[in-house]
Amino acid sequence: MGKKSKKNRQNQNKPDLGLHASRLGIDLGGTKILAGVVDDQGRILGSAKRKTRPERGVDEVIARIVKTAQDAVVDAGLDMSAIKAIGIGAPGVADYRTGVIEFAPNLNNWVNVALGPRLEQALGVPVIVENDVNAGTYGEATVGAAAGYRSVVGIFPGTGIGGGIILDGRLLRGAHNAAGEIGHMVVLIDGPRCGCGRRGCIEALASRTAIERDILGELRGGRKSLISELIDPDNPQITSGTLATALAERDPLVTDVIERAAYHLGVFTGSLINGLDPECVVYGGGLIEACGPVMLPIIRETTYRYLIRPIEPDRLPILEAALGDNAVLLGAAMLAAVEAEPA
Amino acid sequence: MGKKSKKNRQNQNKPDLGLHASRLGIDLGGTKILAGVVDDQGRILGSAKRKTRPERGVDEVIARIVKTAQDAVVDAGLDMSAIKAIGIGAPGVADYRTGVIEFAPNLNNWVNVALGPRLEQALGVPVIVENDVNAGTYGEATVGAAAGYRSVVGIFPGTGIGGGIILDGRLLRGAHNAAGEIGHMVVLIDGPRCGCGRRGCIEALASRTAIERDILGELRGGRKSLISELIDPDNPQITSGTLATALAERDPLVTDVIERAAYHLGVFTGSLINGLDPECVVYGGGLIEACGPVMLPIIRETTYRYLIRPIEPDRLPILEAALGDNAVLLGAAMLAAVEAEPA
Repeated sequence: MGKKSKKNRQNQNKPDLGLHASRLGIDLGGTKILAGVVDDQGRILGSAKRKTRPERGVDEVIARIVKTAQDAVVDAGLDMSAIKAIGIGAPGVADYRTGVIEFAPNLNNWVNVALGPRLEQALGVPVIVENDVNAGTYGEATVGAAAGYRSVVGIFPGTGIGGGIILDGRLLRGAHNAAGEIGHMVVLIDGPRCGCGRRGCIEALASRTAIERDILGELRGGRKSLISELIDPDNPQITSGTLATALAERDPLVTDVIERAAYHLGVFTGSLINGLDPECVVYGGGLIEACGPVMLPIIRETTYRYLIRPIEPDRLPILEAALGDNAVLLGAAMLAAVEAEPA
Repeated sequence: MGKKSKKNRQNQNKPDLGLHASRLGIDLGGTKILAGVVDDQGRILGSAKRKTRPERGVDEVIARIVKTAQDAVVDAGLDMSAIKAIGIGAPGVADYRTGVIEFAPNLNNWVNVALGPRLEQALGVPVIVENDVNAGTYGEATVGAAAGYRSVVGIFPGTGIGGGIILDGRLLRGAHNAAGEIGHMVVLIDGPRCGCGRRGCIEALASRTAIERDILGELRGGRKSLISELIDPDNPQITSGTLATALAERDPLVTDVIERAAYHLGVFTGSLINGLDPECVVYGGGLIEACGPVMLPIIRETTYRYLIRPIEPDRLPILEAALGDNAVLLGAAMLAAVEAEPA
């Protein structure tokens, strides 16, 4: 898919201000860095990957990002001067105005790292920095499952529950760069303890971590499940893949817990729609990728039942994310196209 | 306050496109119609009031709105030709693009009434139609407690719980005219039954109706309270004023129930901020007007405790509404100024 564009691009003059402008999107994760050169249509013309190694410190991580970016540009058969803008999605609180990562626990606790300015200096290209889940939602809303919709809520249940809100085509950053933390919206006052220390957040009810807690609790209470044979009793972590295996075997305990989580997500989704009334909702994340066939029908049925003003499903679809592991880099690149480039 | 402006206006040429432009704001309620002529600064230059009489049918209500509008203009010492635009807040689902009230249970079940076009025809002035709570929030955000803030969430607990969301200076209508129904966001999955038929909506936990239900339940269970002496046993309704009286007497039952409702509102407010991150929150409505001194400190303390990303209270204040009964007409007039007038 990207091959033809790659050849075309090499024959073009620089700087490229036409239809085939290229941006670089980077997904900075706690374990790996993904970079991709992305065209206007969201096609990936070249890419590269490297481990993050956050334990080696900020300078090393930034050097690794720079190398990965350069590798992706080479893979696309381009020169960095052909890149109009760079977008980077990072796992933490990002100030998109200054490019500073205010706090990133998953990067060995970065505090106030001027990621954007440092990458601009190293690469000579305008850089925009964004929270990774916001970037992923933006990717799905521009070149993914929700392409063509202008108001989109993204919900990504995995280890936690991330999300993003796009209204009238614009990512909602909030007045203090704190919008879109939908995993910590409360759906069960005084409910189960959340990883954040509070109680009853949707993340404490329907993330993979919450599901793991509920299944292990039932096992300790004596309930039988084939999941006992699938996990290491000394380190009883339950991956999304393990959940999918148990679902495929119709294990009653896992099915019960997953169905309840999906019900909670459905009530939450209906509730969010009552407040925000988006054009569509996109569900993605590790838990949905693994267990979507069981969870999504329950999420959908419950959501529409919880709407205070009935809206037909086809007028407010609940879509499954389409970009997989490329969502963050694609969204970061698309965001850079509208926000990092001089008009 | 409005007197001086009134005299000034009579000496001006028409049409008035200058600083002292006037709009008409109308608050169409289930029991009364309020109309006011409003200047650019949100001052009321003249006003009028009339009963709604929804039981007499749509035509009669519209005729009464027209008369009330005309009376307000006369009260301001003006002619209708001096009015640049009219905004009307109505208790129901309003399509602001067409001016149609899609559904209004409190107006004797209006369905698809072309209120905007009919008023435009009768009065010869552009009309914008909006949901009343949205209009009230817009009033507080432009000329009320939150004037100067561009992203505002309004929460109005009374018989139900209404609300409105303003982001970047614009009222959030949603993709299906259904945004801002925050009273039906769920904070206690499978919790108490709500008037809407679902369970656990914040309205089912913290509206005056919910508080009344909880107090009457405790009385039936044998708990003593001076509220027994304040209500009619044959028709046991508990008004916000009665609640305030019982609070002033430090009645333990009423205090318990009100404090719990305030706690629920605080968790809900923190939760909403985690999603939307506005610049401020405005609390108004009958319950807050009557019981604010007890409820607001609890709401504030709980809200800030529930923020996933700590924000100092002075950077995200929780304000008390300032416009009282004029909020809807003022907001409708201010909205008409930006949306109903040709640019």
